[in-house]
Amino acid sequence: MADQSLKLAVLHQNGWQLENIVDRLRAARSDWMALHGRSCEPDERELPSRKIMGEVVEALSGALFPMLLGPADLRLESEDFYVGHTLDAALNTLLQQICLELGHGLRPSLEIERQARSIVQDFALTLPQLRRLLDDDVMAAFRGDPAARSVDEVLLCYPGIVAIIHHRIAHHLYNAGLPLMARMTSELAHSATGIDIHPGARIGSSFFIDHGTGVVIGETAIIGDRVRIYQAVTLGAKRFDADDTGQLVKGQPRHPIVEDDVVIYAGATILGRITIGAGSSIGGNVWLTRSVPPGSNITQANLQNQAGKLG
Amino acid sequence: MADQSLKLAVLHQNGWQLENIVDRLRAARSDWMALHGRSCEPDERELPSRKIMGEVVEALSGALFPMLLGPADLRLESEDFYVGHTLDAALNTLLQQICLELGHGLRPSLEIERQARSIVQDFALTLPQLRRLLDDDVMAAFRGDPAARSVDEVLLCYPGIVAIIHHRIAHHLYNAGLPLMARMTSELAHSATGIDIHPGARIGSSFFIDHGTGVVIGETAIIGDRVRIYQAVTLGAKRFDADDTGQLVKGQPRHPIVEDDVVIYAGATILGRITIGAGSSIGGNVWLTRSVPPGSNITQANLQNQAGKLG
Amino acid sequence: MADQSLKLAVLHQNGWQLENIVDRLRAARSDWMALHGRSCEPDERELPSRKIMGEVVEALSGALFPMLLGPADLRLESEDFYVGHTLDAALNTLLQQICLELGHGLRPSLEIERQARSIVQDFALTLPQLRRLLDDDVMAAFRGDPAARSVDEVLLCYPGIVAIIHHRIAHHLYNAGLPLMARMTSELAHSATGIDIHPGARIGSSFFIDHGTGVVIGETAIIGDRVRIYQAVTLGAKRFDADDTGQLVKGQPRHPIVEDDVVIYAGATILGRITIGAGSSIGGNVWLTRSVPPGSNITQANLQNQAGKLG
Amino acid sequence: MADQSLKLAVLHQNGWQLENIVDRLRAARSDWMALHGRSCEPDERELPSRKIMGEVVEALSGALFPMLLGPADLRLESEDFYVGHTLDAALNTLLQQICLELGHGLRPSLEIERQARSIVQDFALTLPQLRRLLDDDVMAAFRGDPAARSVDEVLLCYPGIVAIIHHRIAHHLYNAGLPLMARMTSELAHSATGIDIHPGARIGSSFFIDHGTGVVIGETAIIGDRVRIYQAVTLGAKRFDADDTGQLVKGQPRHPIVEDDVVIYAGATILGRITIGAGSSIGGNVWLTRSVPPGSNITQANLQNQAGKLG
Amino acid sequence: MADQSLKLAVLHQNGWQLENIVDRLRAARSDWMALHGRSCEPDERELPSRKIMGEVVEALSGALFPMLLGPADLRLESEDFYVGHTLDAALNTLLQQICLELGHGLRPSLEIERQARSIVQDFALTLPQLRRLLDDDVMAAFRGDPAARSVDEVLLCYPGIVAIIHHRIAHHLYNAGLPLMARMTSELAHSATGIDIHPGARIGSSFFIDHGTGVVIGETAIIGDRVRIYQAVTLGAKRFDADDTGQLVKGQPRHPIVEDDVVIYAGATILGRITIGAGSSIGGNVWLTRSVPPGSNITQANLQNQAGKLG
Amino acid sequence: MADQSLKLAVLHQNGWQLENIVDRLRAARSDWMALHGRSCEPDERELPSRKIMGEVVEALSGALFPMLLGPADLRLESEDFYVGHTLDAALNTLLQQICLELGHGLRPSLEIERQARSIVQDFALTLPQLRRLLDDDVMAAFRGDPAARSVDEVLLCYPGIVAIIHHRIAHHLYNAGLPLMARMTSELAHSATGIDIHPGARIGSSFFIDHGTGVVIGETAIIGDRVRIYQAVTLGAKRFDADDTGQLVKGQPRHPIVEDDVVIYAGATILGRITIGAGSSIGGNVWLTRSVPPGSNITQANLQNQAGKLG
Repeated sequence: MADQSLKLAVLHQNGWQLENIVDRLRAARSDWMALHGRSCEPDERELPSRKIMGEVVEALSGALFPMLLGPADLRLESEDFYVGHTLDAALNTLLQQICLELGHGLRPSLEIERQARSIVQDFALTLPQLRRLLDDDVMAAFRGDPAARSVDEVLLCYPGIVAIIHHRIAHHLYNAGLPLMARMTSELAHSATGIDIHPGARIGSSFFIDHGTGVVIGETAIIGDRVRIYQAVTLGAKRFDADDTGQLVKGQPRHPIVEDDVVIYAGATILGRITIGAGSSIGGNVWLTRSVPPGSNITQANLQNQAGKLG
Repeated sequence: MADQSLKLAVLHQNGWQLENIVDRLRAARSDWMALHGRSCEPDERELPSRKIMGEVVEALSGALFPMLLGPADLRLESEDFYVGHTLDAALNTLLQQICLELGHGLRPSLEIERQARSIVQDFALTLPQLRRLLDDDVMAAFRGDPAARSVDEVLLCYPGIVAIIHHRIAHHLYNAGLPLMARMTSELAHSATGIDIHPGARIGSSFFIDHGTGVVIGETAIIGDRVRIYQAVTLGAKRFDADDTGQLVKGQPRHPIVEDDVVIYAGATILGRITIGAGSSIGGNVWLTRSVPPGSNITQANLQNQAGKLG
Repeated sequence: MADQSLKLAVLHQNGWQLENIVDRLRAARSDWMALHGRSCEPDERELPSRKIMGEVVEALSGALFPMLLGPADLRLESEDFYVGHTLDAALNTLLQQICLELGHGLRPSLEIERQARSIVQDFALTLPQLRRLLDDDVMAAFRGDPAARSVDEVLLCYPGIVAIIHHRIAHHLYNAGLPLMARMTSELAHSATGIDIHPGARIGSSFFIDHGTGVVIGETAIIGDRVRIYQAVTLGAKRFDADDTGQLVKGQPRHPIVEDDVVIYAGATILGRITIGAGSSIGGNVWLTRSVPPGSNITQANLQNQAGKLG
Repeated sequence: MADQSLKLAVLHQNGWQLENIVDRLRAARSDWMALHGRSCEPDERELPSRKIMGEVVEALSGALFPMLLGPADLRLESEDFYVGHTLDAALNTLLQQICLELGHGLRPSLEIERQARSIVQDFALTLPQLRRLLDDDVMAAFRGDPAARSVDEVLLCYPGIVAIIHHRIAHHLYNAGLPLMARMTSELAHSATGIDIHPGARIGSSFFIDHGTGVVIGETAIIGDRVRIYQAVTLGAKRFDADDTGQLVKGQPRHPIVEDDVVIYAGATILGRITIGAGSSIGGNVWLTRSVPPGSNITQANLQNQAGKLG
Repeated sequence: MADQSLKLAVLHQNGWQLENIVDRLRAARSDWMALHGRSCEPDERELPSRKIMGEVVEALSGALFPMLLGPADLRLESEDFYVGHTLDAALNTLLQQICLELGHGLRPSLEIERQARSIVQDFALTLPQLRRLLDDDVMAAFRGDPAARSVDEVLLCYPGIVAIIHHRIAHHLYNAGLPLMARMTSELAHSATGIDIHPGARIGSSFFIDHGTGVVIGETAIIGDRVRIYQAVTLGAKRFDADDTGQLVKGQPRHPIVEDDVVIYAGATILGRITIGAGSSIGGNVWLTRSVPPGSNITQANLQNQAGKLG
Repeated sequence: MADQSLKLAVLHQNGWQLENIVDRLRAARSDWMALHGRSCEPDERELPSRKIMGEVVEALSGALFPMLLGPADLRLESEDFYVGHTLDAALNTLLQQICLELGHGLRPSLEIERQARSIVQDFALTLPQLRRLLDDDVMAAFRGDPAARSVDEVLLCYPGIVAIIHHRIAHHLYNAGLPLMARMTSELAHSATGIDIHPGARIGSSFFIDHGTGVVIGETAIIGDRVRIYQAVTLGAKRFDADDTGQLVKGQPRHPIVEDDVVIYAGATILGRITIGAGSSIGGNVWLTRSVPPGSNITQANLQNQAGKLG
């Protein structure tokens, strides 16, 4: 019967005009390439992959803290075997990714590969020191949070630890001339934790971010040792300088300097190339665009008082 | 020996009273169904799946930007093949999901499937235009962030780009009468980026959200072209209207209108159906519930001054 | 020709000095163990795994809401089979994880396993009640958000629901003496939603968090029934008490008590062991460190007025 | 330097002439379609999938023997839950595959789906009886092999059991008018075991094939109860009848009938529509093309003697 | 309209009578348990898993031949790390499987676990010797096959090598009192290669099977050094001894003894506890049930001659 | 209590002496390297991977027969997109594998890569012709087997088709100077089907192997058009020539030539460089070491008659 003709008939009666759509998407890509002055040469190659960078960082985390961040069934007897095997795989993958970033848009050359290999070797040799730095970060979190029960809990659960592991790796890559891979690394942490630290930021030892969601730390920020920061703190730029043509000037120092032993409570916003003196305490929700001397204790209340006195 | 009786004996000595628990869970489901006036007919079917929507969006992203968001080993020669093959799979999956949403709670009918197919075809034909819109968003980010090194970095790393790709797809689905799939799509971006844009929001071209964590943009918000927004900005409702029975009235215009070329800095809260005039700048942490004319420059300081004058 | 010698020669010419790096990483681990007074005995075992806890919670979510959070192709006829099979697997996995947490650092004993089994059985028997609690949470969200179209949309899409499912499980684990697994569970939700609820917090029925990014609820907070909270709300500690040696005192009541029927709007910060009286409304961005009586309506404006009067 | 130009330059210098190859492959497909009188209409759909049939059989095996062929961590308490959940999924998948086979080349119709559903229901209802049949096959293997240590070993290890599980399912499908899915099922066993039983073959209870590699049992073979067969035995056709046009006549009875309680040793070749009488023993490497009465004991030696006497 | 009611209505109109089928399957299992005198106690646990044994053998193969059978991207520098890490995981998995086999049907006890651990340790310590034995097998294959181009080809491609790796592991397990795991191991090779070597068979050094499909070597066969065998060779039992009750007597020596330096060509069938003297050559398709002295050259032709002379 | 000390204590009391075992395995590898005169230089690289070759062949099969051997959800509209995308990925993977085989043991050079690229391009360009050849093989199977219901069944189910697809690819690789990858490819088919065709064998068009288990076709065999072969047929070497030192001479023509239109029934063994004349029929289990003229009809019976006459 005619009315028996069915769903499948509808579903597959005609296609999606794929040829048409594929053609118009190609045209859109061409226009974009033309706009950016790129030619479409067949030897153009891909860039590093965010997914692969995620795997590299996960492998490195396991190699740094094998019994806690490594595989669930690891035993002490084979800890070193695991570390060596995992490191080797991670470093080789890193090498390939670095070759892609360094070589992007250039003609391939032996020189690029020598440079990439050198970067990986340098990075690998700093890993033991990185582990010691991260141990100090873990201790800082344990000491700074009354809710922390054990260093294990800190390492396994705290988003601030995820963020600082990623940042210390990203910062190394950034300094090695790999801004794209550095940024991918920091955005992996941003997505997982809500903590957004630009890989360019310089951060001292024993650093602790609690809760963390909404923290933003800008590219040229400098942070001393033993600094503690809470959720939704911004260390940002006050304004962006533009050149004569109206283009933003990139790379200028424009974010705060936070000296040793400073605590910045939740929601504080600190903007511009100002200095927070050592040992200062910045209260919650404070809006700060001026330097403060060492030992300052800034709260909304005394800020308003000051404003009142000055007003 | 008795003391040899072991762990496994303990572990498996008795079960978990599964029958009991399963029965009581069934009772809880029945009570819920009864409460909502739903019958338990066997032809009731599932709803769209958030996981599958995530795969659809990932496939569409690859089809839109094959060399950057497609598979790591893609080459230019096979770009179109990849795009066509990926699109076809994504569109067919989308078709199935749409049938589920449109048909939920209804008797299955050919009409639903015709409607679903038509929605998919319309969506597919807009993809080239969507790509061009997203290219403009990428350029806006590159131009608006002094830390951005390249358009590639923007596309590969910036959470604001993830958010706007998802939003532009979600908004299309929302307009096509698919609020559930639209919301799933926007929540995927929310989870990955901390940026919460309701799929109903209307957003112009060259839109850029920097950092982004904590941004909330409500259902009836309208945003013009070339608008830039920073982290923790809220475009929210001031109050909810309730009807005579105390039920909230749904669908009323209740979020801000932001005209072209506005910049809204971090932490600003803008509430209610007010209008931010074209070219205005809204400072960090500003709390705004009144319309401002074009070209306004609103900061905490001048707001308080105004308040002082008015007070 | 000599100059034909190629990339691979470079890539594999020498290794990564792995022996050296592995040795130094081992030394770093030893130093850490020594610092924490831990011996390196071969019977030391791993801790619970965050990844496995994620799988447990996902399985439990499916068992609680099979047709919405279970597998995409589930049918009503096999709902109970799915629930029973999934529960059994999830409970056995949970048992193993609990044995790891309870036994960490102790000599293995039958007693630990009896205790773990008892915890799992208690938890399993509360699942039907948990489902009913969560049903109330879903209804609270549906009623509290004018943008919500259906209870299905709420359950499938809302981050606040993800957060409360995780919290109610985490809180049970916390009360059962499993702080590490509890914290892992809550951090899974934190990472996915930006909502950071400490597993120790006590939360009443019909709880709803809208948008949610940036919400922080502390360990000793107590929240009544029918409370509604928006994004970026903090229920935090005002100060941390330290003992004579300068160590933070852990476990003290230090977070707010929020009574029944309170609404707290976006960005409000409520600190210290204060009480928000039943039925109160706390406005957006309010900074509150004093108790308020039932029925209060606190906004930035009236707070400043009060401050003015008191000042 | 010019000689620095590298491998990557070579690798990506030019593509693979993909357009050319794709075009010529399309032409080859068109020619094949034309040869077979098939049109290329867009509503033509795929056939059942061998891979999916493998998953169905694996699921059914688990449902039939849950503690041995089901998941490794199954416990008795949840055995029925597992069986019900697994069956439901397997039967629904089977339904889809059957719709594909029945509907291939036809216009879709409700009738096809009713028929498919009826086949699945019939099959499902025979599963308990199938389990009992297979239990008898397992016992036959245990009793017939002096190397068998336990019925568990037989069920977990013996290729003959893999073959008979697949065959009994395949034969049901074959009788239900699904020759393609039936053949896929039997070829899965053939690939895994080297035992090639055509799904059309009729096999009685308590059947045992030992070692099995190289066994071939033809489409129209009929095998009684308690038959035992060793590796490399062929129950084949002696000749193929062709019709007037030279085409082979399909479906004719052309393979042996093996009555109850027969043993056929390794390498024996039995060809044509002959009958092996009940209780007979056919020796290794025997080549037999004539019927033998019940109770016969045929060996190479006495065959040659017979041949000699007859010769 | 009525005729709009659709496929989905049919598909989901009613279920599969799952309750009925699940009940009857349970009854079938109970009958089987009763028949075998097994009670259904909840502490009964599963047996070793064929799939897991496959993973163990694959891991051991990688540890034995890391650069050829290990992961594709292994490098010499990390060879030992890989070997140690892989071995540790494989040995721990093996330990769990052995506990299951040893403990099956028994009450769990510490003694079983001590025994399992001791078996694993013994096995682990023989691995270096096993590697040397397998090296000799590889050399035998390379020397014995004119088509072999390199030892690498032999190790990577030859089914005979797959078979002997599995056999030498299976034989160790068999001797350690683990007949089930041993049989699983040998059946894995049987399925992959068509070579069926019972784990009980004793095989000397430098053993080579070419092509291999259809080879069967029985449980009590004994094979000397430097023996070469071709496809479809059977070293089988001539008859099975039954006891007074008609039960087969298990474990009797009933398969051939093949002395050093024997070659057996394709299709030869050698049955019973006979001895093939050192250095003999057994021709293709020969059927042999009598011992032959060292240095014999047996072919079909001279066998028939002998038969003629004897006849 | 002492008797509380438990399983885990036993399990982890001591390790596996991993260092010892790893050391001795390294020694075994070194001895093997020394024996084969290989140095252990760090730039030595891996060989092609059997697993990867399996993926390449599967992808090529899909590209050749997209609607039958491609993905289950492929539709006609995107057939070419799928083919192009799949081919590109498969060819690039093939390129990498070829570089590994060609470069094994050599210093890396641009020349190797140029050669590999040229091989891949040649292979790619023959794919349309390969498809046509395989179409003829499918038709030969359909016409030659009375049990075949459709060409779809043949392509989806018949092991002989799996074997010939692999062989025709393997033979191309073999002729291109890649004996190792060729052998891997043919062994993949051997493992899946029990059909062992050496990649060197030359096979004409419309070739059909039925059932197939146990078929062996040697390296130098030459097979004409329209040849049909049944299970357990051997086309082997009669003897191996050794040189003065006793080493086997490799590469000599030593397997049969089978002319056009020959049928060889199950179990026939044909040995040596003999010729089976066109149109001949070789009966089951025949043992043949002499050439036969065109049109011969050889059976066991007439062979013995001949033998009798000659004897």
